[in-house]
Amino acid sequence: MTDSSAAASLLSTIAALREALGSDAVRTGDAIGERSMTDWTHHAPARPAALLLPRTTEDVSRALAICNEAHQPVVPQGGMTGLAAGAVARATDIAMALDRLAGVEEIDRAAATLTVRAGTTLQAAQEAAEAAGFELALDLGARGSCQIGGNLATNAGGNRVIQSGTAREQVLGLEVVLASGAVLSSMNKMVKNNTGYDLKQLFIGSEGTLGIITRAVLRLQPRRAARHTALVALESYDAVVSLLRRLSARVGNDIGAFEIMWPDFFDFGVALTAGGRSPFATAHPLYALVEHTSFDAADDGERFATLLGEALEDGAVRDAVIAQTVADARALWAIRECTAEFPARLDPINFDVSLPIGDIGHFVDHCRAELDRRWPGNRSYFFGHIGDSNLHVTVDGHSVPGVSHHDVYAFVYAMLAPYGGSVSAEHGIGLLKREFLAVSRSSEELAAMVAIKRALDPNGILNPGKVI
Amino acid sequence: MTDSSAAASLLSTIAALREALGSDAVRTGDAIGERSMTDWTHHAPARPAALLLPRTTEDVSRALAICNEAHQPVVPQGGMTGLAAGAVARATDIAMALDRLAGVEEIDRAAATLTVRAGTTLQAAQEAAEAAGFELALDLGARGSCQIGGNLATNAGGNRVIQSGTAREQVLGLEVVLASGAVLSSMNKMVKNNTGYDLKQLFIGSEGTLGIITRAVLRLQPRRAARHTALVALESYDAVVSLLRRLSARVGNDIGAFEIMWPDFFDFGVALTAGGRSPFATAHPLYALVEHTSFDAADDGERFATLLGEALEDGAVRDAVIAQTVADARALWAIRECTAEFPARLDPINFDVSLPIGDIGHFVDHCRAELDRRWPGNRSYFFGHIGDSNLHVTVDGHSVPGVSHHDVYAFVYAMLAPYGGSVSAEHGIGLLKREFLAVSRSSEELAAMVAIKRALDPNGILNPGKVI
Repeated sequence: MTDSSAAASLLSTIAALREALGSDAVRTGDAIGERSMTDWTHHAPARPAALLLPRTTEDVSRALAICNEAHQPVVPQGGMTGLAAGAVARATDIAMALDRLAGVEEIDRAAATLTVRAGTTLQAAQEAAEAAGFELALDLGARGSCQIGGNLATNAGGNRVIQSGTAREQVLGLEVVLASGAVLSSMNKMVKNNTGYDLKQLFIGSEGTLGIITRAVLRLQPRRAARHTALVALESYDAVVSLLRRLSARVGNDIGAFEIMWPDFFDFGVALTAGGRSPFATAHPLYALVEHTSFDAADDGERFATLLGEALEDGAVRDAVIAQTVADARALWAIRECTAEFPARLDPINFDVSLPIGDIGHFVDHCRAELDRRWPGNRSYFFGHIGDSNLHVTVDGHSVPGVSHHDVYAFVYAMLAPYGGSVSAEHGIGLLKREFLAVSRSSEELAAMVAIKRALDPNGILNPGKVI
Repeated sequence: MTDSSAAASLLSTIAALREALGSDAVRTGDAIGERSMTDWTHHAPARPAALLLPRTTEDVSRALAICNEAHQPVVPQGGMTGLAAGAVARATDIAMALDRLAGVEEIDRAAATLTVRAGTTLQAAQEAAEAAGFELALDLGARGSCQIGGNLATNAGGNRVIQSGTAREQVLGLEVVLASGAVLSSMNKMVKNNTGYDLKQLFIGSEGTLGIITRAVLRLQPRRAARHTALVALESYDAVVSLLRRLSARVGNDIGAFEIMWPDFFDFGVALTAGGRSPFATAHPLYALVEHTSFDAADDGERFATLLGEALEDGAVRDAVIAQTVADARALWAIRECTAEFPARLDPINFDVSLPIGDIGHFVDHCRAELDRRWPGNRSYFFGHIGDSNLHVTVDGHSVPGVSHHDVYAFVYAMLAPYGGSVSAEHGIGLLKREFLAVSRSSEELAAMVAIKRALDPNGILNPGKVI
């Protein structure tokens, strides 16, 4: 197609979309705000050719059928809080925001399920669950802006994975519109349902490349009414793993968080959030922020204190500080959450990798040594959700002047391959990591992904250029 | 193809397989034992044209490449304990048993994972996990015979789903051989890995129609060292749901079983296993067998007793018997497990359906009334894993003389549709329920399944005639 015939085709597609969805559901030009132009990565911002704002699943279906017929790329957009540029559209793409397809449809107390539309913010869904006496076991920093559709399309991780799994584990049913406009409604409420292929699994985590999620049935959990937090100092990474297994063996998934901080990160966090005053009198090789939860609101933390006391007595941990008040707990969490300050203080080059839990300590040592050898004087911070096998590394671009982010990515990802590690634990591939997907996936796996993509989206209209 | 050219093609395929795998790995005729001819349903027994016994993933790959080239159907077989005839081969199929591809390869204590070959029995995998101080949270009656590959291919449910989910939830990594012979090795050990499509999910529960599972990485749980069992009498199905939610809110997934028995079933179980002496002095509308587990071996059941005592005091339950000894607990479980006697005592027409938890009581009332109306004098037994939304119904064929099993299936499944229920909670579709799949799946879902099947197995050689 020539440029001018492509432009004519795009215009006629937009006209057909206005006809089908109504003019107020199709925006173009300046009527498309900044928010639709990029995500939290600020990567490759562009104003899409049009922004669709469907109100119903039928709108989504009609719109996709029109775009599929015209071979017109469509980029689904949620809260635009992604960290892999997975929802960033090009100037020739049509974006589809799910904002108007929002709201909690039902809470089924007997089944312990929440039925929700894709454009609902995570926080609104959480609040509805809590009002009904339950808890939605999915939580992340972007909760006020991110949307359920995006959470599921990216298989979001976040704060509670160690206890309740990723977004995938919360899904019982899903409604998805395929590229053809066909509505795949599998709004199952049952825990068990072995009737053919579990189709919903394909769409969860596929970043909008196989279908657009419109509704979901999510599992609700009983409320964990009490939470107690401790900061623990450890001798070595082996001691970290031993503590994780020891706590798990004693209280299972009453462990609600197990966040590890290496000293560079910890010291940075203490400097930023506690005026440099560490909760400990001396420095330690490693730090763990551990949370214990209980369904019993009257739990006074005695059991958790006893467990940590025993670990201290037999030398499994070097020191421990248990938060006595909510303010204490917040101060401890603030150290871990100093990452919110990274964009203001650093030029963050972020990694979100995963490795087998036992290998993470070696990888950190290896990675730090190699970074120091390659770029002496670099400032790098290591931390992560170790109970979930997820390590974050942030290299400060200011400390490696003249080096591109891409070069740092390539350098670190190359180190990951021998460990069988993953280039994305939770943020996804999007545009940013597509080049590095082959570090973690074999050619046979990539070929199978392409075969599935072709089977479900033969014209390749859904989020082209993302993931594969 | 004419019959004679088909026979010639089959013979040359078998010759090529002998060449590739060695003669001792390819059996034909009488060398194929009874076990390879049908599963626990005894449905459509047939001696397959050949039985392959691969020793390695490479053997599986070579064999499938040969069969794919020849368009030769292949039926994967595990322990042959299935309940849907999903592994039953026809006389013109080649069966592939994974028996020799067996053994636990590794237990990674830091990652809490078990790496296992598909032909390993569930019990062998459980024992390996226990020897390492962990627990494999998958358990079913067939544990001594069923194999991990079959458990995953059918997404097995079983005894611990309420606590730890189905087989799917235990899988972190999977190795699968596709119809082409391509080896899809995704032997991931990480809790989080968002690098493209989660391919393993497609093969779990697809009953060998998309690929043959050869190895898996399974998640291990800490050991639940104490178990306490109670039999509870309840006023109504609403009281059942209230008790489930009440216990869940107080102790989360420390509830290890929540099995409901309607009076017909309970009385039958008591007659068979306890000489007719019910643990209760009077009859009740419903019975629940409830198990409470703890990671703490020293848990003396006090907490569970307190919870049940409170429920008794405020009228939430009518009566409760708590097992004081292991023998007591076994006696209570024996009532629920009287199903083992069904084949000897009845002509069982079995249903394994699921419905939203809140609807199960209505469905049972409705179903019983309709059965009585249609076939007065029928004997039907209702029971199930209600915490998992799974209801079992067994109609005794002897009580509906002259009525085919098929007619009873069709009658009950037709009642299920308005509830959004599933024709298979855990046993799968196989051959037996293929005709009824459309009760639970829409035409769009079936079309998507067919598209995926074609994409991954274009010649349709893998377990043809099963599921879709």
